[in-house]
Amino acid sequence: MRQIPRLFVGPRLAPGARFELDPAQAHQLLAVLRLDTGAELRLLDDQTGEWAARIAAVTRRAVTVEVGAMIRGRETVADFWLVAAPIRPERFALMVEKATELGVGRIQPVLTSRTQHARQNPARLHAHMVEAAEQCGRTALPALAEPLALPALLAGWDQARTLLFADEEGGAPAATVMAAAPPPAAVLIGPEGGFAPEERAALLAHPAVRRLARGPRILRADTAAVAAIALWQALSGGER
Amino acid sequence: MRQIPRLFVGPRLAPGARFELDPAQAHQLLAVLRLDTGAELRLLDDQTGEWAARIAAVTRRAVTVEVGAMIRGRETVADFWLVAAPIRPERFALMVEKATELGVGRIQPVLTSRTQHARQNPARLHAHMVEAAEQCGRTALPALAEPLALPALLAGWDQARTLLFADEEGGAPAATVMAAAPPPAAVLIGPEGGFAPEERAALLAHPAVRRLARGPRILRADTAAVAAIALWQALSGGER
Repeated sequence: MRQIPRLFVGPRLAPGARFELDPAQAHQLLAVLRLDTGAELRLLDDQTGEWAARIAAVTRRAVTVEVGAMIRGRETVADFWLVAAPIRPERFALMVEKATELGVGRIQPVLTSRTQHARQNPARLHAHMVEAAEQCGRTALPALAEPLALPALLAGWDQARTLLFADEEGGAPAATVMAAAPPPAAVLIGPEGGFAPEERAALLAHPAVRRLARGPRILRADTAAVAAIALWQALSGGER
Repeated sequence: MRQIPRLFVGPRLAPGARFELDPAQAHQLLAVLRLDTGAELRLLDDQTGEWAARIAAVTRRAVTVEVGAMIRGRETVADFWLVAAPIRPERFALMVEKATELGVGRIQPVLTSRTQHARQNPARLHAHMVEAAEQCGRTALPALAEPLALPALLAGWDQARTLLFADEEGGAPAATVMAAAPPPAAVLIGPEGGFAPEERAALLAHPAVRRLARGPRILRADTAAVAAIALWQALSGGER
C-alpha cells in the first residue's frame, strides 16, 4: 500500500481552493512519485490543518491541486522553544529536524562567542523541517527565527518564559528542573565549545534562567537538544 | 589549543605497555593529524579506562605507542539496553552513535516482521560507536550484540530486566513508566512500520514488558530511541 503524499503548501487552505504547487513539489509528484491527474494528496498549510486534496490538472511541469475536505485541524503545540547555537550545518539540520518531530513552537538560533557556524542556510533548514513534519504526520511547523546574539537574546527575553540550560559546574538534576518548568519555557543549547565565562555569568544572573546539571556525559549538541526537548515534553509538556 | 587525540585500542592497557596501532589509526595520526614521535595521546581499551600515552616510534605507516599513567578508570554504565529494529543504515548508524553518547550498556538489534533493513554492517556500526565515544569523552562502549528475531529475543529474555516499549494503542505516560523501571532495563524500538499485531500481542503478554503511551507524535525510530534513552537516564539512570 502506497502512502498518500503529504505536502506543506504556502496558500491558506479552504474547501474547493485550486492553485499550482511550487515547481519542486510538482517535480516530486510527477517525476519521482509518477503521479497524475486525479491522484490523492494531503495538503497542510501550518495554519488551518490537514486537508484532503487531489491533482486537478497537469501541464508541462505544473501541477494544479484542488482542495477537498479538512481532515484535522492544526495540532496544538506546547509553548516551548529551542534556542540553539548553530553548529556544523549537517548537524544543525539534524537538530532542527528532530526539534520539528518532537514538536517545539519556535527554533531560535543564538550566536555566542564560541559559535563557529553562524552562517546557516535558512531555506535549507526550513526544507528539513518541512520534510520531517511531512514524514512524521505533523500538522504544525516550528517558527524559524532570525539568529540573535546572546546578549540581545537575554536583553529582550520575556521574563515569564523559563530558559533552561545545562551547566557544566552544577545545578539540580535535569528531571527535577524540567518538571518544574511549565510553559512558556525554552531550552538553550550552547555551541560545541560551551559558553564563555562571561556568557555563563550573564545566564546565571538572568531572572528567567534555570540551570540544570549537565549530567555525567558530554553530549554532542544535537543529541543534547533532542534529550532536553524529549525530557521537557515528558515532564512539563502537559499533553496527557 | 589542539585536543589530544583519544583512541580506543584493542590491547588491554597497562603502564609501560608498547604496541602498534592498527593501520587506520596510524593513518589518522600520521596523515590526517600530522603527528610524529613523542606526540601525546589518550588511549582507551573499554576495559580498564583511559590512559596517557605517546607515540614511541614511527616507521613506514606503522605507529608504535607507549602507555603511561592511567588518567581515569572505565566509567560506570547503568544497566540499560537499547533493543532496536534496524532501519536505513545511515539512520541506524545515527541511532547507535547517539545511544553510545547517552551511555547504554548494550545495543541489541532485533528483527521483526516489518524490518526492512536487517542487513547492517557491524564493523561500520562499531566504528560509529567508537567515534562517538572518542569525541564525547566516554571511556566505555556499548556491547553490540548479534541480531535476534523478536520471538527468540522474547523467549530468552531475562525476566528481571524490564523491557519498555511505546504502544500506539495506549499505556501510561512515558515519564511514569520510565520512573518505575530501575535497572536492569531496556527499551524496545520497532521498525518504521511498527509491530505486527501478533508481535504486539506477544509483547503485551510477556511478563518483563511494560508499555508506555507513544505520545501525540510519531517520531522517527532514531529520534524515539534518543528520547527514550534520555528519559530513562534522567528518571531511572541513578547517576546523581
